[in-house]
Amino acid sequence: MTKQAKDLNDLFLETLKDIYYAEKQILRALPKMAKASQDPKLKQAFETHREQTEGQVERLEQVFEMIAKPARGKTCEAIMGLIEEGKEVMEDFGGTPTVDAGLLAGAQAVEHYEISRYGTLISWAKQLGMNDAAKLLEATLKEEKQTDELLTSIASSQVNRKAA
Amino acid sequence: MTKQAKDLNDLFLETLKDIYYAEKQILRALPKMAKASQDPKLKQAFETHREQTEGQVERLEQVFEMIAKPARGKTCEAIMGLIEEGKEVMEDFGGTPTVDAGLLAGAQAVEHYEISRYGTLISWAKQLGMNDAAKLLEATLKEEKQTDELLTSIASSQVNRKAA
Repeated sequence: MTKQAKDLNDLFLETLKDIYYAEKQILRALPKMAKASQDPKLKQAFETHREQTEGQVERLEQVFEMIAKPARGKTCEAIMGLIEEGKEVMEDFGGTPTVDAGLLAGAQAVEHYEISRYGTLISWAKQLGMNDAAKLLEATLKEEKQTDELLTSIASSQVNRKAA
Repeated sequence: MTKQAKDLNDLFLETLKDIYYAEKQILRALPKMAKASQDPKLKQAFETHREQTEGQVERLEQVFEMIAKPARGKTCEAIMGLIEEGKEVMEDFGGTPTVDAGLLAGAQAVEHYEISRYGTLISWAKQLGMNDAAKLLEATLKEEKQTDELLTSIASSQVNRKAA
Protein backbone atom coordinates (compact mmCIF):
# COMPACT_ATOMS: atom_id res chain seq x y z
CA MET A 1 0.00 0.00 0.00
CA THR A 2 1.03 3.58 -0.51
CA LYS A 3 2.13 6.13 2.04
CA GLN A 4 -0.89 8.27 1.21
CA ALA A 5 -3.26 5.82 2.87
CA LYS A 6 -4.21 7.47 6.11
CA ASP A 7 -7.76 6.84 7.16
CA LEU A 8 -9.99 4.11 8.51
CA ASN A 9 -11.40 3.35 5.03
CA ASP A 10 -7.90 2.40 3.93
CA LEU A 11 -7.26 0.35 7.03
CA PHE A 12 -10.61 -1.40 6.56
CA LEU A 13 -9.68 -2.29 2.98
CA GLU A 14 -6.19 -3.53 3.97
CA THR A 15 -7.66 -5.72 6.68
CA LEU A 16 -10.36 -7.03 4.35
CA LYS A 17 -7.61 -8.06 1.90
CA ASP A 18 -5.71 -9.69 4.76
CA ILE A 19 -8.64 -11.85 5.89
CA TYR A 20 -9.62 -12.63 2.27
CA TYR A 21 -6.13 -14.00 1.69
CA ALA A 22 -6.31 -15.86 5.00
CA GLU A 23 -9.66 -17.49 4.19
CA LYS A 24 -8.33 -18.69 0.83
CA GLN A 25 -5.29 -20.23 2.52
CA ILE A 26 -7.55 -21.89 5.07
CA LEU A 27 -9.66 -23.33 2.23
CA ARG A 28 -6.51 -25.01 0.93
CA ALA A 29 -5.31 -26.19 4.34
CA LEU A 30 -8.54 -27.74 5.64
CA PRO A 31 -8.63 -30.79 3.32
CA LYS A 32 -5.05 -31.62 4.37
CA MET A 33 -6.04 -31.28 8.03
CA ALA A 34 -9.11 -33.48 7.48
CA LYS A 35 -6.93 -36.09 5.78
CA ALA A 36 -4.39 -36.10 8.62
CA SER A 37 -7.04 -36.39 11.37
CA GLN A 38 -7.38 -39.75 13.07
CA ASP A 39 -10.63 -38.98 14.90
CA PRO A 40 -13.77 -39.21 12.70
CA LYS A 41 -15.55 -36.33 14.46
CA LEU A 42 -12.57 -34.05 13.99
CA LYS A 43 -12.26 -35.08 10.33
CA GLN A 44 -15.95 -34.26 9.88
CA ALA A 45 -15.55 -30.90 11.63
CA PHE A 46 -12.75 -29.91 9.24
CA GLU A 47 -14.81 -30.99 6.22
CA THR A 48 -17.87 -29.06 7.41
CA HIS A 49 -15.76 -26.00 8.13
CA ARG A 50 -14.31 -26.18 4.64
CA GLU A 51 -17.80 -25.82 3.14
CA GLN A 52 -18.57 -23.00 5.56
CA THR A 53 -15.35 -21.23 4.57
CA GLU A 54 -16.48 -21.16 0.92
CA GLY A 55 -19.53 -19.17 2.01
CA GLN A 56 -17.32 -16.87 4.09
CA VAL A 57 -15.14 -16.14 1.06
CA GLU A 58 -18.30 -15.24 -0.89
CA ARG A 59 -19.42 -12.87 1.88
CA LEU A 60 -16.05 -11.13 1.74
CA GLU A 61 -16.46 -10.77 -2.03
CA GLN A 62 -19.83 -9.12 -1.40
CA VAL A 63 -18.18 -6.67 1.00
CA PHE A 64 -15.54 -5.83 -1.65
CA GLU A 65 -18.42 -5.15 -4.05
CA MET A 66 -20.13 -2.90 -1.52
CA ILE A 67 -17.06 -0.69 -1.32
CA ALA A 68 -16.53 -0.94 -5.08
CA LYS A 69 -13.09 -2.51 -4.84
CA PRO A 70 -11.80 -5.62 -6.61
CA ALA A 71 -11.71 -8.70 -4.35
CA ARG A 72 -7.99 -9.13 -3.92
CA GLY A 73 -5.96 -10.74 -1.17
CA LYS A 74 -2.79 -9.45 0.42
CA THR A 75 -0.25 -11.81 1.96
CA CYS A 76 -1.21 -12.35 5.57
CA GLU A 77 1.95 -13.27 7.47
CA ALA A 78 0.00 -14.37 10.53
CA ILE A 79 -2.01 -17.03 8.73
CA MET A 80 1.10 -18.26 6.91
CA GLY A 81 2.71 -18.74 10.32
CA LEU A 82 -0.30 -20.55 11.72
CA ILE A 83 -0.49 -22.88 8.73
CA GLU A 84 3.26 -23.51 8.94
CA GLU A 85 2.84 -24.56 12.58
CA GLY A 86 0.06 -26.96 11.53
CA LYS A 87 2.39 -28.55 8.96
CA GLU A 88 5.04 -29.09 11.63
CA VAL A 89 2.49 -30.88 13.81
CA MET A 90 1.52 -33.16 10.91
CA GLU A 91 5.18 -33.94 10.24
CA ASP A 92 6.12 -34.55 13.85
CA PHE A 93 3.02 -36.36 15.10
CA GLY A 94 1.49 -37.77 11.88
CA GLY A 95 -0.27 -41.12 12.28
CA THR A 96 -0.50 -40.93 16.10
CA PRO A 97 -3.53 -39.92 18.19
CA THR A 98 -1.49 -36.92 19.32
CA VAL A 99 -1.71 -35.44 15.82
CA ASP A 100 -5.39 -34.74 16.45
CA ALA A 101 -4.67 -32.75 19.61
CA GLY A 102 -2.12 -30.70 17.67
CA LEU A 103 -4.37 -30.15 14.65
CA LEU A 104 -7.20 -29.14 16.92
CA ALA A 105 -5.02 -26.64 18.76
CA GLY A 106 -3.80 -25.21 15.46
CA ALA A 107 -7.33 -24.92 14.13
CA GLN A 108 -8.41 -23.10 17.28
CA ALA A 109 -5.54 -20.65 16.91
CA VAL A 110 -6.77 -19.98 13.35
CA GLU A 111 -10.35 -19.53 14.55
CA HIS A 112 -9.18 -17.05 17.18
CA TYR A 113 -7.24 -15.12 14.57
CA GLU A 114 -10.38 -14.89 12.48
CA ILE A 115 -12.56 -14.01 15.48
CA SER A 116 -10.31 -11.06 16.26
CA ARG A 117 -10.12 -9.92 12.62
CA TYR A 118 -13.87 -10.12 12.01
CA GLY A 119 -14.56 -8.42 15.36
CA THR A 120 -12.31 -5.56 14.28
CA LEU A 121 -13.82 -5.31 10.78
CA ILE A 122 -17.36 -5.24 12.20
CA SER A 123 -16.47 -2.44 14.60
CA TRP A 124 -14.83 -0.43 11.78
CA ALA A 125 -17.70 -1.10 9.34
CA LYS A 126 -20.17 0.29 11.88
CA GLN A 127 -17.94 3.29 12.53
CA LEU A 128 -17.84 3.95 8.78
CA GLY A 129 -21.63 3.62 8.47
CA MET A 130 -21.43 0.37 6.46
CA ASN A 131 -24.17 -1.50 8.26
CA ASP A 132 -24.85 -4.01 5.46
CA ALA A 133 -21.18 -4.98 5.41
CA ALA A 134 -21.24 -5.28 9.21
CA LYS A 135 -24.17 -7.71 8.98
CA LEU A 136 -22.38 -9.97 6.51
CA LEU A 137 -19.25 -9.97 8.66
CA GLU A 138 -21.32 -10.72 11.75
CA ALA A 139 -22.77 -13.82 10.08
CA THR A 140 -19.23 -15.09 9.53
CA LEU A 141 -18.08 -14.15 13.03
CA LYS A 142 -20.94 -16.22 14.45
CA GLU A 143 -19.84 -19.25 12.40
CA GLU A 144 -16.22 -18.87 13.51
CA LYS A 145 -17.24 -18.75 17.16
CA GLN A 146 -19.45 -21.82 16.72
CA THR A 147 -16.57 -23.68 15.05
CA ASP A 148 -14.26 -22.76 17.91
CA GLU A 149 -16.81 -24.07 20.43
CA LEU A 150 -17.29 -27.28 18.45
CA LEU A 151 -13.51 -27.81 18.42
CA THR A 152 -13.34 -27.22 22.18
CA SER A 153 -16.05 -29.82 22.75
CA ILE A 154 -14.32 -32.38 20.50
CA ALA A 155 -11.04 -31.71 22.34
CA SER A 156 -12.46 -32.17 25.79
CA SER A 157 -14.68 -35.13 24.93
CA GLN A 158 -12.17 -37.38 23.26
CA VAL A 159 -9.17 -36.12 21.39
CA ASN A 160 -7.05 -35.04 24.33
CA ARG A 161 -7.87 -38.22 26.25
CA LYS A 162 -6.74 -40.42 23.35
CA ALA A 163 -3.59 -38.32 22.86
CA ALA A 164 -2.46 -38.63 26.48
CA MET B 1 12.14 -31.67 17.42
CA THR B 2 12.81 -35.30 16.60
CA LYS B 3 10.61 -37.82 14.88
CA GLN B 4 10.46 -39.88 18.07
CA ALA B 5 8.28 -37.30 19.79
CA LYS B 6 4.84 -38.84 19.76
CA ASP B 7 2.80 -38.11 22.83
CA LEU B 8 0.91 -35.30 24.49
CA ASN B 9 3.81 -34.57 26.85
CA ASP B 10 5.96 -33.74 23.84
CA LEU B 11 3.24 -31.63 22.24
CA PHE B 12 2.73 -29.79 25.54
CA LEU B 13 6.45 -29.01 25.72
CA GLU B 14 6.59 -27.85 22.09
CA THR B 15 3.61 -25.56 22.61
CA LEU B 16 5.06 -24.23 25.85
CA LYS B 17 8.26 -23.32 23.96
CA ASP B 18 6.14 -21.67 21.24
CA ILE B 19 4.24 -19.41 23.66
CA TYR B 20 7.42 -18.69 25.67
CA TYR B 21 9.06 -17.42 22.49
CA ALA B 22 5.90 -15.49 21.62
CA GLU B 23 5.71 -13.78 25.04
CA LYS B 24 9.34 -12.69 24.74
CA GLN B 25 8.68 -11.21 21.30
CA ILE B 26 5.61 -9.43 22.67
CA LEU B 27 7.74 -7.99 25.50
CA ARG B 28 9.97 -6.43 22.85
CA ALA B 29 7.11 -5.20 20.66
CA LEU B 30 4.93 -3.55 23.31
CA PRO B 31 7.20 -0.54 24.04
CA LYS B 32 7.28 0.21 20.29
CA MET B 33 3.50 -0.03 20.14
CA ALA B 34 3.16 2.25 23.18
CA LYS B 35 5.51 4.76 21.57
CA ALA B 36 3.55 4.76 18.28
CA SER B 37 0.15 5.16 19.99
CA GLN B 38 -1.50 8.56 19.75
CA ASP B 39 -4.23 7.90 22.29
CA PRO B 40 -3.07 8.18 25.95
CA LYS B 41 -5.37 5.39 27.17
CA LEU B 42 -4.08 3.03 24.51
CA LYS B 43 -0.47 3.98 25.30
CA GLN B 44 -1.16 3.25 28.97
CA ALA B 45 -2.81 -0.09 28.12
CA PHE B 46 0.30 -1.19 26.20
CA GLU B 47 2.59 -0.11 29.05
CA THR B 48 0.49 -1.92 31.64
CA HIS B 49 0.35 -5.04 29.49
CA ARG B 50 4.12 -4.98 29.16
CA GLU B 51 4.49 -5.26 32.93
CA GLN B 52 1.88 -8.01 32.99
CA THR B 53 3.74 -9.88 30.27
CA GLU B 54 6.87 -9.99 32.44
CA GLY B 55 4.86 -11.87 35.06
CA GLN B 56 3.50 -14.19 32.37
CA VAL B 57 7.02 -15.03 31.22
CA GLU B 58 7.91 -15.89 34.83
CA ARG B 59 4.88 -18.17 35.13
CA LEU B 60 5.96 -20.01 31.99
CA GLU B 61 9.42 -20.43 33.52
CA GLN B 62 7.77 -21.98 36.57
CA VAL B 63 5.91 -24.44 34.33
CA PHE B 64 9.20 -25.39 32.63
CA GLU B 65 10.62 -26.04 36.11
CA MET B 66 7.62 -28.21 37.04
CA ILE B 67 8.30 -30.49 34.09
CA ALA B 68 12.05 -30.34 34.70
CA LYS B 69 12.90 -28.85 31.31
CA PRO B 70 15.05 -25.81 30.55
CA ALA B 71 13.01 -22.69 29.71
CA ARG B 72 13.75 -22.35 26.05
CA GLY B 73 11.75 -20.75 23.24
CA LYS B 74 11.16 -22.09 19.77
CA THR B 75 10.50 -19.77 16.85
CA CYS B 76 6.78 -19.13 16.66
CA GLU B 77 5.95 -18.25 13.06
CA ALA B 78 2.47 -17.04 13.98
CA ILE B 79 3.66 -14.37 16.39
CA MET B 80 6.36 -13.27 13.94
CA GLY B 81 3.61 -12.75 11.36
CA LEU B 82 1.41 -10.83 13.77
CA ILE B 83 4.27 -8.56 14.81
CA GLU B 84 5.22 -8.03 11.16
CA GLU B 85 1.65 -6.90 10.45
CA GLY B 86 1.87 -4.46 13.37
CA LYS B 87 5.07 -3.00 11.89
CA GLU B 88 3.33 -2.46 8.54
CA VAL B 89 0.53 -0.56 10.29
CA MET B 90 3.07 1.68 12.04
CA GLU B 91 4.84 2.35 8.73
CA ASP B 92 1.68 3.01 6.73
CA PHE B 93 -0.39 4.94 9.28
CA GLY B 94 2.26 6.31 11.68
CA GLY B 95 1.44 9.71 13.17
CA THR B 96 -2.27 9.62 12.25
CA PRO B 97 -5.20 8.74 14.53
CA THR B 98 -5.75 5.70 12.29
CA VAL B 99 -2.52 4.16 13.58
CA ASP B 100 -4.24 3.57 16.91
CA ALA B 101 -7.09 1.62 15.32
CA GLY B 102 -4.54 -0.54 13.51
CA LEU B 103 -2.34 -1.07 16.58
CA LEU B 104 -5.38 -1.95 18.62
CA ALA B 105 -6.56 -4.48 16.04
CA GLY B 106 -3.07 -6.01 15.89
CA ALA B 107 -2.87 -6.23 19.67
CA GLN B 108 -6.25 -7.95 19.79
CA ALA B 109 -5.09 -10.49 17.21
CA VAL B 110 -2.10 -11.19 19.45
CA GLU B 111 -4.33 -11.52 22.53
CA HIS B 112 -6.55 -13.98 20.67
CA TYR B 113 -3.52 -16.02 19.65
CA GLU B 114 -2.48 -16.20 23.28
CA ILE B 115 -6.03 -16.97 24.47
CA SER B 116 -6.17 -19.95 22.14
CA ARG B 117 -2.68 -21.18 23.09
CA TYR B 118 -3.21 -20.87 26.84
CA GLY B 119 -6.66 -22.50 26.52
CA THR B 120 -5.04 -25.45 24.76
CA LEU B 121 -2.17 -25.71 27.26
CA ILE B 122 -4.57 -25.66 30.22
CA SER B 123 -6.66 -28.43 28.71
CA TRP B 124 -3.55 -30.55 28.03
CA ALA B 125 -2.05 -29.85 31.48
CA LYS B 126 -5.24 -31.13 33.11
CA GLN B 127 -5.29 -34.18 30.84
CA LEU B 128 -1.71 -34.90 31.89
CA GLY B 129 -2.52 -34.48 35.60
CA MET B 130 -0.45 -31.28 35.94
CA ASN B 131 -2.94 -29.29 37.97
CA ASP B 132 -0.41 -26.83 39.41
CA ALA B 133 0.75 -25.94 35.92
CA ALA B 134 -2.87 -25.57 34.81
CA LYS B 135 -3.48 -23.08 37.63
CA LEU B 136 -0.52 -20.90 36.61
CA LEU B 137 -1.62 -20.94 32.98
CA GLU B 138 -5.18 -20.08 34.01
CA ALA B 139 -3.94 -16.97 35.82
CA THR B 140 -2.32 -15.82 32.60
CA LEU B 141 -5.34 -16.71 30.46
CA LYS B 142 -7.49 -14.55 32.72
CA GLU B 143 -5.14 -11.59 32.22
CA GLU B 144 -5.11 -12.05 28.44
CA LYS B 145 -8.90 -12.07 28.33
CA GLN B 146 -9.07 -8.95 30.50
CA THR B 147 -6.56 -7.20 28.22
CA ASP B 148 -8.63 -8.13 25.16
CA GLU B 149 -11.76 -6.71 26.82
CA LEU B 150 -9.93 -3.52 27.80
CA LEU B 151 -8.75 -3.08 24.20
CA THR B 152 -12.30 -3.61 22.94
CA SER B 153 -13.58 -0.93 25.29
CA ILE B 154 -10.85 1.54 24.26
CA ALA B 155 -11.63 0.82 20.59
CA SER B 156 -15.35 1.39 20.90
CA SER B 157 -15.10 4.37 23.23
CA GLN B 158 -12.70 6.53 21.29
CA VAL B 159 -10.02 5.15 19.02
CA ASN B 160 -12.23 4.06 16.12
CA ARG B 161 -14.20 7.30 16.27
CA LYS B 162 -11.05 9.40 16.02
CA ALA B 163 -9.70 7.21 13.23
CA ALA B 164 -12.80 7.55 11.06
